[in-house]
Amino acid sequence: MMEERYVKEITPKSQDFSRWYIEVIRKAELVDYAPMKGMMVIRPYGYAIWEKIKELLDRRLKETGHVNAYFPLFIPESFLKKEAEHVKGFAPQVAWVTHGGDEELEERLAVRPTSEAIICSMYAKWIKSWRDLPVLINQWANIVRWEKVTRPFLRTTEFLWQEGHTAHATEEEAEEETLRILSIYKDFVENDLAIPVIAGKKTEREKFAGALRTYSIEALMADGRALQAGTSHNLGQHFSRAFNIRYEDKNQNLQYVWQTSWGVSTRLIGAVIMVHGDDSGLRFPPRIAPIQVVIVPIPANEWKEKIYKKGEHIEKELKKISVRAHFDSREEYTPGWKYSDWEMRGVPLRIEIGPKDMEKKQVVLVRRDNREKIPVSQDVLIEKISPLLEEIQKSLYNQALNFLKENTHNVNNYEEFKEIIENKRGFIKTFWCGNQDCEDKIKDETGASIRVISMEKEEKSEGNCVYCGKKAENLVYFAKAY
Amino acid sequence: MMEERYVKEITPKSQDFSRWYIEVIRKAELVDYAPMKGMMVIRPYGYAIWEKIKELLDRRLKETGHVNAYFPLFIPESFLKKEAEHVKGFAPQVAWVTHGGDEELEERLAVRPTSEAIICSMYAKWIKSWRDLPVLINQWANIVRWEKVTRPFLRTTEFLWQEGHTAHATEEEAEEETLRILSIYKDFVENDLAIPVIAGKKTEREKFAGALRTYSIEALMADGRALQAGTSHNLGQHFSRAFNIRYEDKNQNLQYVWQTSWGVSTRLIGAVIMVHGDDSGLRFPPRIAPIQVVIVPIPANEWKEKIYKKGEHIEKELKKISVRAHFDSREEYTPGWKYSDWEMRGVPLRIEIGPKDMEKKQVVLVRRDNREKIPVSQDVLIEKISPLLEEIQKSLYNQALNFLKENTHNVNNYEEFKEIIENKRGFIKTFWCGNQDCEDKIKDETGASIRVISMEKEEKSEGNCVYCGKKAENLVYFAKAY
Repeated sequence: MMEERYVKEITPKSQDFSRWYIEVIRKAELVDYAPMKGMMVIRPYGYAIWEKIKELLDRRLKETGHVNAYFPLFIPESFLKKEAEHVKGFAPQVAWVTHGGDEELEERLAVRPTSEAIICSMYAKWIKSWRDLPVLINQWANIVRWEKVTRPFLRTTEFLWQEGHTAHATEEEAEEETLRILSIYKDFVENDLAIPVIAGKKTEREKFAGALRTYSIEALMADGRALQAGTSHNLGQHFSRAFNIRYEDKNQNLQYVWQTSWGVSTRLIGAVIMVHGDDSGLRFPPRIAPIQVVIVPIPANEWKEKIYKKGEHIEKELKKISVRAHFDSREEYTPGWKYSDWEMRGVPLRIEIGPKDMEKKQVVLVRRDNREKIPVSQDVLIEKISPLLEEIQKSLYNQALNFLKENTHNVNNYEEFKEIIENKRGFIKTFWCGNQDCEDKIKDETGASIRVISMEKEEKSEGNCVYCGKKAENLVYFAKAY
Repeated sequence: MMEERYVKEITPKSQDFSRWYIEVIRKAELVDYAPMKGMMVIRPYGYAIWEKIKELLDRRLKETGHVNAYFPLFIPESFLKKEAEHVKGFAPQVAWVTHGGDEELEERLAVRPTSEAIICSMYAKWIKSWRDLPVLINQWANIVRWEKVTRPFLRTTEFLWQEGHTAHATEEEAEEETLRILSIYKDFVENDLAIPVIAGKKTEREKFAGALRTYSIEALMADGRALQAGTSHNLGQHFSRAFNIRYEDKNQNLQYVWQTSWGVSTRLIGAVIMVHGDDSGLRFPPRIAPIQVVIVPIPANEWKEKIYKKGEHIEKELKKISVRAHFDSREEYTPGWKYSDWEMRGVPLRIEIGPKDMEKKQVVLVRRDNREKIPVSQDVLIEKISPLLEEIQKSLYNQALNFLKENTHNVNNYEEFKEIIENKRGFIKTFWCGNQDCEDKIKDETGASIRVISMEKEEKSEGNCVYCGKKAENLVYFAKAY
């Protein structure tokens, strides 16, 4: 039967995670490969998730005083070179424009790998006085980084993101902004994407090229590898000194501004897929699901008309209360095929209506998160949906939180460390002396990197470095990462 | 006085339109020049208008069944070459990426000047059966065209736009879609941007490179030049044959699809500025104004606290009913300076509150469209605002419509044609034989081009070609254009 074949076409997640990921994102029509190596097309069903992400995060950023703007795609090579560490970090990944029409350019242009250089050159013009501060600008844009190994959503030559770039009068304000954004990201990812994250500070080795300090939120994928889900950088005065961004303070003294930058990208869609998916396909958290409720009719000849009418009515009523509902009226597929198809596509809630349901004046709800079947009277159906969607949202978060807890290992010695990274993966919570030598050696020997230095106050304590055994003050999270 | 100087810094619109345009968009902080020739930065106040345009147009497109997606920025040169007229039209304007990191690419990549080529290559994979049609995809994206002469918003090397790309089973459906979009554009520009437009068909000379037929909406700027504000193309089967996009029809026969593409861009912001602005600066239609109402306190010492409290309260109450209000609490500027500043920035409605108003329990409203001053009791203020904003929206439209009517000239002979183009500009409505020779000669001799062939049914009639005098069936609109 067709429906059986359809579901079996996806490699089960539990069997081969990488294959499952690639198969499910293409079968669910989230994404397709473009004809150019390493580039992807985000199809409507996948782009709808990005639209929800944009809407929900943009609202949070605007509520905290940020405004959007748009800066050019191209950055002259000389600008990229102004901040020494920055160019070192990004130059190997830059796509270069060398010709405009038939003419060779005098100076080649970088397709933005990030926009600090161009934005700072404008801030140097715009910022004159303490009255101009703070500047709290965000940009939604496309970014290009020439990548050798790519995977849709996680690492592609082009991706979409938002990048915030702020300027402040004092170091304290910049640090405050950096941490405010980190907490906005954490709140957004945990509440709207239902993904629990570890927030913390990056080591010198892992920080952004040009930053003073980098903070990030890290999520744990179902295969035990960590994914950096968002970063917030305190840039200090590195860029303001390189680009000469100065303001006159209240005492008429010229001061360099203090800056931050921060971003999340379409990579978040990859995180949603990898955290919540199961053997049958995707499972989208209701708040970002393109379709929250699918209504599937089970038509028997004499009942067909009534069932279709009811299905259309339910769709209409749900849309009225802003539920993203879809009535699947296709006649060329069986109900069973449709169930599998919509499960694979991750719709959080299904409403089935058959002849028996019509007789009983009910419908059957089927939750995607736990497959529970709930018969509900047609009279009270509409009012049940929003609370149930919120419950599914929480249930997905709790499942992911349990997974994170079960796969976070407190470890004190290096043998155990290696054994866990080799066999179980997940996060390893341990002490590190702060010496980059130890960090490098662990990375070389196990493939695990320090994802973040813990910022949780209650965890401030002392131990011994898991590698060298010396006294250590940094409680850190190690993991293999994407 | 500071406030006097500020206003005088802008060249009056009536004195030098081009200078006024450049000065006002920079003074109002809509836009700034980027350090690369021909590129612009859209500043927060300008970008807020683009966000409103996106929101209002995107809603219309979704209501008519369109969905958004995202296709790659880069297009391999060989793809661009597949449709012969298309590459001929765009190749001279392409920015070419030749290197990724340190490596030279085997095939150079075009930074998209428009996305037909890359989108068609994907449609060839996605479209198999009549069940897959219609495909109604839109994309919001950045576009690069290497331009020799640039002007912010109107013609820049990079700009933002939406581009719709649809595929249909029949020629009729494609034509229907092309015209549906044209009418959506007309409705949107007239109602939300308050700009009356002429809709019609382009001549062969002026159509899109690769299209079967192009339709456009044309607006008249305050200097009497026309601006193409949106285009909708019926692509016929030109691209489906070049890219081999075929579907199996209900009789199992393979058929090439029929396609359309259409777009509007950040150029619309330029149109808003040029149509509505006056000697004092910008005038934004309320529906797209970043700030709809500005509240300016006139503090006298003993009244200051009460006036500020009232101003903040009004801002809060207006925001509650979704009016974009702003209380200008800055203490370093005088009320008079603020009036000029917000007038220059185009805010549709100003609320002034001074000590005398507080005594009378009133405020004074000042309309930007006609400078009318309206004292209003504080008790009924909030409920008055939305209707008044709608009235201002209509008033701006009507002013623009009157200007369009006054500057559309019915002309029958070529001497008069030349005289009007030379001295008055505006649209010339006349007959044209359909011969491209006449069209070319008029363009060479006067600089005016055929903006559109009229589609208005009541205007179908016959006359003589304004150039050669032969019998002519095309009633056309000529103008000098941006």
